[in-house]
Amino acid sequence: MNRVREAVTVIGLGSMGSALAAALLDQGHPTTVWNRTPGRADALLAKGATLAADPAQAVAASGLTIICVLDYDAMYGILGPAAAVLEGKTLVNLTSGSPEQAHEATAWAERHGAAYLDGAIMTTPPGVGSPGTMFLYSGEAALLEAHRPALAALGDPLHLGTDPGLASLHDVALLGLMWSTFTGWLHGTSVVTAQGTDATAFTRVALRWLTTVAGFMTTYAPQVDAGRYPGDDATIDVQIAAIDHLIHAAAARGVDNALPELLKATMLRARTAGHGSDSYASVVEVLKKPESAK
Amino acid sequence: MNRVREAVTVIGLGSMGSALAAALLDQGHPTTVWNRTPGRADALLAKGATLAADPAQAVAASGLTIICVLDYDAMYGILGPAAAVLEGKTLVNLTSGSPEQAHEATAWAERHGAAYLDGAIMTTPPGVGSPGTMFLYSGEAALLEAHRPALAALGDPLHLGTDPGLASLHDVALLGLMWSTFTGWLHGTSVVTAQGTDATAFTRVALRWLTTVAGFMTTYAPQVDAGRYPGDDATIDVQIAAIDHLIHAAAARGVDNALPELLKATMLRARTAGHGSDSYASVVEVLKKPESAK
Ligand SMILES: NC(=O)c1ccc[n+]([C@@H]2O[C@H](COP(=O)([O-])OP(=O)(O)OC[C@H]3O[C@@H](n4cnc5c(N)ncnc54)[C@H](OP(=O)(O)O)[C@@H]3O)[C@@H](O)[C@H]2O)c1
Ligand SMILES: NC(=O)c1ccc[n+]([C@@H]2O[C@H](COP(=O)([O-])OP(=O)(O)OC[C@H]3O[C@@H](n4cnc5c(N)ncnc54)[C@H](OP(=O)(O)O)[C@@H]3O)[C@@H](O)[C@H]2O)c1
Repeated sequence: MNRVREAVTVIGLGSMGSALAAALLDQGHPTTVWNRTPGRADALLAKGATLAADPAQAVAASGLTIICVLDYDAMYGILGPAAAVLEGKTLVNLTSGSPEQAHEATAWAERHGAAYLDGAIMTTPPGVGSPGTMFLYSGEAALLEAHRPALAALGDPLHLGTDPGLASLHDVALLGLMWSTFTGWLHGTSVVTAQGTDATAFTRVALRWLTTVAGFMTTYAPQVDAGRYPGDDATIDVQIAAIDHLIHAAAARGVDNALPELLKATMLRARTAGHGSDSYASVVEVLKKPESAK
Repeated sequence: MNRVREAVTVIGLGSMGSALAAALLDQGHPTTVWNRTPGRADALLAKGATLAADPAQAVAASGLTIICVLDYDAMYGILGPAAAVLEGKTLVNLTSGSPEQAHEATAWAERHGAAYLDGAIMTTPPGVGSPGTMFLYSGEAALLEAHRPALAALGDPLHLGTDPGLASLHDVALLGLMWSTFTGWLHGTSVVTAQGTDATAFTRVALRWLTTVAGFMTTYAPQVDAGRYPGDDATIDVQIAAIDHLIHAAAARGVDNALPELLKATMLRARTAGHGSDSYASVVEVLKKPESAK
């Protein structure tokens, strides 16, 4: 039995918007599209999408509109002239922005009688449509439930809470984790490639190691929630001793040490704050108390 | 059919050495142990270990000696008086140190007629004995093969190359990745917990995200080897725009921004070096050329 797929409109056909529309079409959703530069719709039209003549026609075509453009200004520029047809519709905004912008957009949509869900896409375009990919949402949970099949066509939808800023806030927090991980990995890569190991071989080992590191994070997360950081496995003092080996090995190979020096300084602050024999999770205490605020 | 297990000596029964000896006993290896403070052997003796009276007796008891003590000075302090019995034996050193120390220890062991393998343990004591845990080795590959069953009792043995410093070098490079990942995660945790999400909930999302990040690293590693960084998925310019959202969100919640500020400065250096439309992997170019060397 074929279930009826919800009709969806996608506004913004950049690399991400195009991937979103393609994933909806792949799952059989009747999909209407609009983009400022109309030529970008061609591949989607060949897949069966319907091209709207303007944003108002696009919004009118479906109960659910998903928008994914450069930034919030672009969104208001597109939807402002179409505001009259938003009444009774659901708007899901996957444009990247700040928690404050998500709050403002919620209020803006409500003023025009639309229900609003803010979202963040935790992948690049090729990852869209895979069930392992996370899409983060915040706003009314019932809205996500009402449109779950369509949103699940894009990836795995996670509801973070009613506060509309939560998706953006998690987005930036997770990107910070990504940049930190990338930079630590590239630093290590610089150190070992200076000695003849290639990056691909090191990365295989690094990815196995990250699963061990993930296990430590699973142990440490409840320590953060409890505000107590027993250093049973490895203490800040032990890490401080070990990081000097890294700094020395990197310096000897001409590799920039700004990152490990900052990490060491952060650990030293944790030790000064009394966490020398606590676990690395205790570093959260110094991050919550900025140097400048002391 | 029971295969005969190689006899093994373990010197150093701190938390790590005790875990190593226990894993060998669990796999049925006749295990002789020695520790400066003899009382630490008690639990192992109850599991069937044999206590040696001194380091020389310990080394004499088995063809393979595994040593894991605080540092290289402690190792020389223990093995120096036992050097006469090292002739014809294999010494596997799992004490943490630098690549230079591994080179010196190889020469020292050779002077005493012993074969030497340097190693690094990529886990904490509870992870010892699990087949997913990596033990890194460098030195003669044939040595690892000759003792593979005993070494596999500790975890999965990976041979990195003949240069004895490679295990230590990878060890510090991987620890650097761990500290970076931890600190990025704790920074993100500080940001979202300021808004009411608990660390355990955020960490569940963060760990799923790390598998996506691992996919990016797999894509980027061959770019590093090729020295070309096509920014098809996400460019340095896009990341620079996004990190300001993180810095702003963290500052608004009183979270220390030293780490994201450093990451942003590093990205800006990559842009200045001409990598604005390249992938994040191009950051390796600026890490290989320290600021101070410019
Ligand atoms: N790409 C990723 O990996 C990724 C991942 C997660 C989140 N995101 C987010 O997804 C959003 C879109 O990214 P993208 O990669 O699709 O970017 P993109 O390929 O550069 O596309 C930008 C889109 O925004 C439209 N646009 C820009 N300025 C506009 C304006 N003033 N008025 C109307 N339309 C305007 C563009 O229309 P034209 O075609 O007419 O220029 C295009 O549809 C961004 O917020 C990005 O942060 C992207
Ligand atoms: N624990 C971990 O998570 C971990 C992970 C990876 C690598 N490692 C490495 O494993 C090694 C041992 O760590 P550990 O956690 O077992 O440390 P530990 O619990 O502090 O044990 C230290 C060991 O070294 C011995 N020792 C210290 N100074 C000595 C000296 N001057 N002469 C003779 N023996 C001496 C101690 O003997 P006494 O009992 O007589 O004091 C004890 O056996 C270190 O290099 C560490 O970096 C540890």
